[in-house]
Parts: sequence; structure tokens; C-alpha cells
Amino acid sequence: MRISELSRTSDVPVPTIKYYLREGLLPAGRALSRTQADYDDAHVERLRLLRALLGVGGLGIAQARRVIRAIDDAASDRLELLEAAQEAIPPVVEVVGDGAGEVDHAASDDALARARDWAAARGWALDPATPMLAELGAAWAACDDAGIGLDAARLDAYADAVERVALIDVASVPSERALAARQVVLGTVLLDPVLAALRRLAQQHLSIRQTERGGPAPYDGPAPSR
Amino acid sequence: MRISELSRTSDVPVPTIKYYLREGLLPAGRALSRTQADYDDAHVERLRLLRALLGVGGLGIAQARRVIRAIDDAASDRLELLEAAQEAIPPVVEVVGDGAGEVDHAASDDALARARDWAAARGWALDPATPMLAELGAAWAACDDAGIGLDAARLDAYADAVERVALIDVASVPSERALAARQVVLGTVLLDPVLAALRRLAQQHLSIRQTERGGPAPYDGPAPSR
Repeated sequence: MRISELSRTSDVPVPTIKYYLREGLLPAGRALSRTQADYDDAHVERLRLLRALLGVGGLGIAQARRVIRAIDDAASDRLELLEAAQEAIPPVVEVVGDGAGEVDHAASDDALARARDWAAARGWALDPATPMLAELGAAWAACDDAGIGLDAARLDAYADAVERVALIDVASVPSERALAARQVVLGTVLLDPVLAALRRLAQQHLSIRQTERGGPAPYDGPAPSR
Repeated sequence: MRISELSRTSDVPVPTIKYYLREGLLPAGRALSRTQADYDDAHVERLRLLRALLGVGGLGIAQARRVIRAIDDAASDRLELLEAAQEAIPPVVEVVGDGAGEVDHAASDDALARARDWAAARGWALDPATPMLAELGAAWAACDDAGIGLDAARLDAYADAVERVALIDVASVPSERALAARQVVLGTVLLDPVLAALRRLAQQHLSIRQTERGGPAPYDGPAPSR
């Protein structure tokens, strides 16, 4: 199909398609002449993927390029694929400039050590070089900064719940290699907003139920430390 | 204390402090002269909060201003506070421009209806006007776009796990009003990165365990629909 039909089929404007072509996010079509090219269903599918990554996925162009490369270079087993995906996707914690000075939330050695000790106490088998431990450490330190009472016991309670999420994630990975790459990379990026929305809705549901009953939430786990 | 001491105590550079003062994120100090002001511990604490919101929280200046206002205007009960917090914090799904055209992921009516039907079938008590249903719908539609097999059954399995997270969230809210406001607003914003990091670490742990055992994950829930 020509670029105009690709635009209609995918519902992506022609200038945006040309932009993706220039940025290397969309492979070139088969050249028909010096100015015309032919596109196929693979291009339609790639455009749907880009919509998802750049839209809800919240990725920038450079991040989307890394994610697509990780899918195309699908590694041979789930663990390699998972590590490739975790490297390709944006960190959960980023150092953010505020326009006037830098607010630096890179994990300190202390924050990293606390996260590593906590994960070891929990018995989690992890790649010791995973950047995710530093990210957990930085996110945990920010909760301290803000005075949220997140102690190791409450983190453990969250981890119990999150392990159930991860179990579904890992079990949902198809065995076919190309599909697995797609599922691991996209599942990590695109399910974060789904889980965040579910968390807010569940908070609302529980708060409304609690208000109706007029009693405290039916939870007797660790209390916040402050 | 003077601004230079506030800077040393809080580890925030003087130009950044002045920027926060101009932007109304930090209340003015008590004027000592035309050019000098006196700051106190409340300013130190506010700066810690801003670090957390602008850093790990990933908020922009305008969003941080809304969050701070929600804390200052603390509502009278947990449910009002929760709704105020959910309005102040950034949506989990945003419409993102890509520099060449708009990639529009605002929830369609269909996406909203599917999310609403799913939540009703689950029996969740929700404010019918909550924007979170549209955000869930948009995030779910993006998963469809990307070909992730997220059907209602798998969403239910995720919701079972996320309800445990929300139960801890809701039970961790202190009864004292100002503390509660702080906990609800910050807990929603700052625990998202903690939970995302935990999810990635748990995925890694489960994948490594599974590879060691050479067998499939011990999960027999719904398979992805495609």
C-alpha cells in the first residue's frame, strides 16, 4: 500500500509516519520509484506498537528505539530477554532537573546497600549487577525524604502482593521466541499504567467500603513506622 | 535561619531555593530587612518534600504545586482526601505529543465502557465520575494496540494482587488529619516507583528460579488471549 493508505489504515497522520521513517522507528517501504514506496501489514503493526509505546507507554523517541531494537534482537531465553527488556525500558527512577538546579536522586551507596540487604533477607535470587536494586534504593530513600513510613516490614508486605503480579507476568510469556520478546518488553512498559490505575481504583473501592462500614480497614499487617 | 544556612541544611542550592520561592512552591520567609528573610524548620521540611516530588515522584512544577495545595487544604475524611489526591496527582495515562503529530490515547467511549463494565462485574464501589476508569480504559486499549494478551480474566488476576497493595495503602493512612493528607498524596505518587522496582525485581527472581528449576512458573491462572 502507499503511504496515504498506510496513514488511513493505521490512523497515523502522514507527517508522523515520515517522522518515524526519518527517526528509524519504522523500516523503509519497498521503493517503487524515487518518490514512492510500498508498505505492508508489518508497517501497520509497527505503527500500532509505536502508538502504544509513545502514548500510554510514555516513552521518548530514543527509548522507543531501544525497546524496538530489544524486540528485534530477541534473545534466546526468557531470562536473557527479561534482562534485555529491563535494560531497554526507562528506569523507574530518573534524575530530574527542575530548570533552576539539579535535584539529584541517584541512589547513594547507603540506599543501594539497604535495598540489597532487604532483597537478600527476602531470599530473592537476583543478578547482583541489576540496576533495579539502585532504583529501588533511590525510590525508597525518596519515601524517607518525604516522611512516608515505609519500613522494611511494610516493604515486605508490598513485595508479597507484587510477587503475585510478577507471577502472572512471568507465566504470561509465550514460548514462541518473537512473541515472547514482544510480551516481555511491552508487558513491562505498558502494564505499569494498568497496574497504577488498578491501584488507585482499588484504593477508592476500599475507602468507600470502609466509610460505609464506619470501621478501620481489615488489615492487621505492620503499621507505618512514623 | 538565613537562606545560606537553609541551603546547607537542606542540601538544596540557593538559586534553586530562590526559584521555588518565585514559583510559590516554598512559602516566603519572615522578612528581616528589604533583602533578608528568616527561614525555619518548616522550610527545611518543605524542601525535602519538593526534592521527593520533583525527583523520584517525577512531577513537574505545576503538578508539584497542585499536590502541595492538596496537602495544605487537607480534607476532613480519608475518602475526600483520597479523591483530592487522585485529582492532584498526574494521570497514569497522558496524551503525548511526539514532535511531529499527536499520538492521541485519550480513552474512547468504548474503552471507558469496557473498563466500567469490568469494574462493575468485579463489584468495586467507585465514584462513577472518577477519571481513573477512563485512564484504566486507555491503558487497557494500549495493551490491545500492542498485542499484549490482556483479557478480563488476566486483568482480574492482576486486580486480586493489586487489591492487597491498596489494602496496605489504605491501612497505612494515619488518623491525624495533616499527616493523613501527606500520606495519601505522597504515598500515591512516591510508592508507584517503589512498586515498579519491586515488580521488576520479582520478575527477575521468578525467572531465575524458573530457569534453575527448568520448569514452568507455578501459576495456573488464565493464559493470555493471544
